Amino acid sequence: MNILLCGCNGRMGKAVEAACGGEDKIVAGIDVTEGNSSFPVYKSIFEVREKADVIVDFSHHTLVYDILSYSKEKEIPAVICTTGHTDEEKEYMSRMDKETAVFTSGNMSLGINLLCSLAKQAAEILGDDYDVEIIEAHHHNKLDAPSGTALMIAEEIESALPYEADRVFDRTPYRKKREKNEIGIHSIRGGSIVGEHEVMFCGGGEVITVKHSALSRDLFAQGAVKAARYMVGKKVGRYSMKDVLKNAGKKAESVL
Amino acid sequence: MNILLCGCNGRMGKAVEAACGGEDKIVAGIDVTEGNSSFPVYKSIFEVREKADVIVDFSHHTLVYDILSYSKEKEIPAVICTTGHTDEEKEYMSRMDKETAVFTSGNMSLGINLLCSLAKQAAEILGDDYDVEIIEAHHHNKLDAPSGTALMIAEEIESALPYEADRVFDRTPYRKKREKNEIGIHSIRGGSIVGEHEVMFCGGGEVITVKHSALSRDLFAQGAVKAARYMVGKKVGRYSMKDVLKNAGKKAESVL
Amino acid sequence: MNILLCGCNGRMGKAVEAACGGEDKIVAGIDVTEGNSSFPVYKSIFEVREKADVIVDFSHHTLVYDILSYSKEKEIPAVICTTGHTDEEKEYMSRMDKETAVFTSGNMSLGINLLCSLAKQAAEILGDDYDVEIIEAHHHNKLDAPSGTALMIAEEIESALPYEADRVFDRTPYRKKREKNEIGIHSIRGGSIVGEHEVMFCGGGEVITVKHSALSRDLFAQGAVKAARYMVGKKVGRYSMKDVLKNAGKKAESVL
Amino acid sequence: MNILLCGCNGRMGKAVEAACGGEDKIVAGIDVTEGNSSFPVYKSIFEVREKADVIVDFSHHTLVYDILSYSKEKEIPAVICTTGHTDEEKEYMSRMDKETAVFTSGNMSLGINLLCSLAKQAAEILGDDYDVEIIEAHHHNKLDAPSGTALMIAEEIESALPYEADRVFDRTPYRKKREKNEIGIHSIRGGSIVGEHEVMFCGGGEVITVKHSALSRDLFAQGAVKAARYMVGKKVGRYSMKDVLKNAGKKAESVL
Repeated sequence: MNILLCGCNGRMGKAVEAACGGEDKIVAGIDVTEGNSSFPVYKSIFEVREKADVIVDFSHHTLVYDILSYSKEKEIPAVICTTGHTDEEKEYMSRMDKETAVFTSGNMSLGINLLCSLAKQAAEILGDDYDVEIIEAHHHNKLDAPSGTALMIAEEIESALPYEADRVFDRTPYRKKREKNEIGIHSIRGGSIVGEHEVMFCGGGEVITVKHSALSRDLFAQGAVKAARYMVGKKVGRYSMKDVLKNAGKKAESVL
Repeated sequence: MNILLCGCNGRMGKAVEAACGGEDKIVAGIDVTEGNSSFPVYKSIFEVREKADVIVDFSHHTLVYDILSYSKEKEIPAVICTTGHTDEEKEYMSRMDKETAVFTSGNMSLGINLLCSLAKQAAEILGDDYDVEIIEAHHHNKLDAPSGTALMIAEEIESALPYEADRVFDRTPYRKKREKNEIGIHSIRGGSIVGEHEVMFCGGGEVITVKHSALSRDLFAQGAVKAARYMVGKKVGRYSMKDVLKNAGKKAESVL
Repeated sequence: MNILLCGCNGRMGKAVEAACGGEDKIVAGIDVTEGNSSFPVYKSIFEVREKADVIVDFSHHTLVYDILSYSKEKEIPAVICTTGHTDEEKEYMSRMDKETAVFTSGNMSLGINLLCSLAKQAAEILGDDYDVEIIEAHHHNKLDAPSGTALMIAEEIESALPYEADRVFDRTPYRKKREKNEIGIHSIRGGSIVGEHEVMFCGGGEVITVKHSALSRDLFAQGAVKAARYMVGKKVGRYSMKDVLKNAGKKAESVL
Repeated sequence: MNILLCGCNGRMGKAVEAACGGEDKIVAGIDVTEGNSSFPVYKSIFEVREKADVIVDFSHHTLVYDILSYSKEKEIPAVICTTGHTDEEKEYMSRMDKETAVFTSGNMSLGINLLCSLAKQAAEILGDDYDVEIIEAHHHNKLDAPSGTALMIAEEIESALPYEADRVFDRTPYRKKREKNEIGIHSIRGGSIVGEHEVMFCGGGEVITVKHSALSRDLFAQGAVKAARYMVGKKVGRYSMKDVLKNAGKKAESVL
């Protein structure tokens, strides 16, 4: 697959470059800053002359206008890996996914998306006999708690539970038994932990746990390459990591 | 639901009694040994006069002939929780499941069966980019290694992998890199650990783990009650924990 | 060792009975409630005729007056395993430990006391380069959070840290980096978890964890028997689990 | 502290450079390969003109002759972080530590050395009532199993146990209960795991675990800087990470 890489000189751009290999190759990059590359780098996506199968974007959310416009014009799908889009940018993406193939994701890691899916299933099957607790751990410089990913996991689980969940971040102010519909969310912060997310389902006599540990931020680059591979050849529509997961699992009939 | 409990005076029989409550109640028990019960206890299932919705059997594998014969005669499903059946007994069960409703399972825990299902899905989706390792831990009196449950998990995973797996129990004799198709299986033994099973999927930059911890042997009794509830009203056929899981997850359309 | 067991018909009394064996034997019990025992049981400690090496008390904190008075009179050490003593009772114990041998402990588990000791050492050695986080997990019926044991661990660690620690139970109200002197304390509640306590020391590039998992409440009975064995022959003074640990580790010169 | 850094252009040399800061600074480097540095780099240690407080060596084990000879001549301590020394080189180091200050360590991580110390203490205190199991996990390219660090941990534990330990790497060939003196050692291999080492002490009703997780190889550089800081001012003798740990823990009287 031939990739057009937006933001090729940033940290994530470099990680995508490293994650390529074999039949996956970057034919051109776009970046306003300088850098060493084995492929031609342009200041604007409209200057690119090379032919590509897919665009991978790790540049900046404001560039989504240029990228999707180019995607539509050249009829090549766009994998948007940036986050933090304004309402206006989101609206633009929602309009453009009727005219070209657009991939977006709250989290580019394949493993995190799999974790969400497994946790959702467990919630659905275990129902209200099991207590749900979420624990996440990150380095001590992280500003927000809980992590956006922990909230994404909580939402997936809540959508599968038979009751309306009540998120609990602190149990010390009360002296009382755990309510059935609580979801405890715990934010560990320390040292240089890259990122861990764990969901516990605690029943009578057993605990089922699903956990994701990020070892380096490269996994987002690898997820982007996997998403790009999936998107090659798609014409129009909005796609997410769930589609990539479903496709990967499609070979076998049904998993349960 | 009204239960007929075979082996009511054994340890697991007592645990089933404890796991009942609300609308679930034991109307009669069968056991050759004496014991205190709040319900009538008979020496043979054919002496039972009470009407029941389902039979739960934690007695002995040799009693499967009497139990399924009674199950067919009275048209009530049988949840067979014993294991270690001879080939002849297995053949008999396979014949009888065309004439009555028979439930059997290699492991009566709902959580362990869920673990198998989640691990299988992860294997299917992550495919050959991730290395699979299984770790199980049990008390120091356990005779066999690896545990039967670990082997059951390995089989489920192997059925979903795109390659022929090679189970590895010891890496010390060789000085070499891990092969892609290895499945490492590790048997921890110590103290009074009830039972833990963990599957790791190790990729570039991330590890996804699914884990089951048994806190007490009561969870098998609870699984039996859940299976019994599912079996009530079934007429003919062979059922397993996969059916119970599927049913529990059916409410929602698709999980992925 | 010959034990005089106060509260022999309660749950913990029965667990102590089960934890004995070999040369450890209960020669008499004291309890106001009825029960089956292989040894004589008296209503009051002053009626006991058997000779014992040590008293083990799992009865009620109000009985500490009788027990220590008997301990002094007969010159046999007393292992007080009850908690929740009033100020007056505490004062009495402090007075009596000048006249007889008194053992008390905030937690009767040898393992929990070892955890405290290891965590304290780690805190001392790792100093202010590592972030400390404490995670505890208990069943969903537990009323208080954090657990008393988690607070006991926090106190031990704080006594070894070069800074004044600030305990943090909830990070969601603020958007900011972790402060160096925070100690995060997280209370997981779910299902039938017996009790888990974990301390993480998170540094640049590494995490060191010490963890204790209780598998059943029997471990308090076993700790009591270990404490009793240590107390045999002691004349006067106040003893705790730290003395039992120190004694166990004394064989070798220095551990570091 | 002023550091003379041997092997400054290698991966670990660069990591030491990154781990310095504040009052710790590299005044000169030695390397035969080229590289960008903010300090002068010489081909041989004998060409160095700058004055330093300590030598940190991440070059090659064969250079130990030059380095210790220079260390003796200039009376500055040497922190030797290379491994794989020949018998002849080891003999030379043993001779030289009578004439200058020499630091060596089987593992440069402070945390791993702390883990060894804590595990040894636990073994000493828990004695033969607890079963010991060691689990280590590394990336799939690691050639040896178990890891050298796991063996180092096993040796420390064995030196504190009251029985002669029997290391067990595979339990599948036998059908039998765990022997009391077994130490199970399990080698997990998968993906890009940097390095994890865990020791479990499993008793009746409880499990105590001590664990070390390496997040990046930088922790060896940080350990080297900590060792260097400790060595400044030392005149003659052989030192190891145990001395660094002891010194860090010395402030408080006794830890138990």
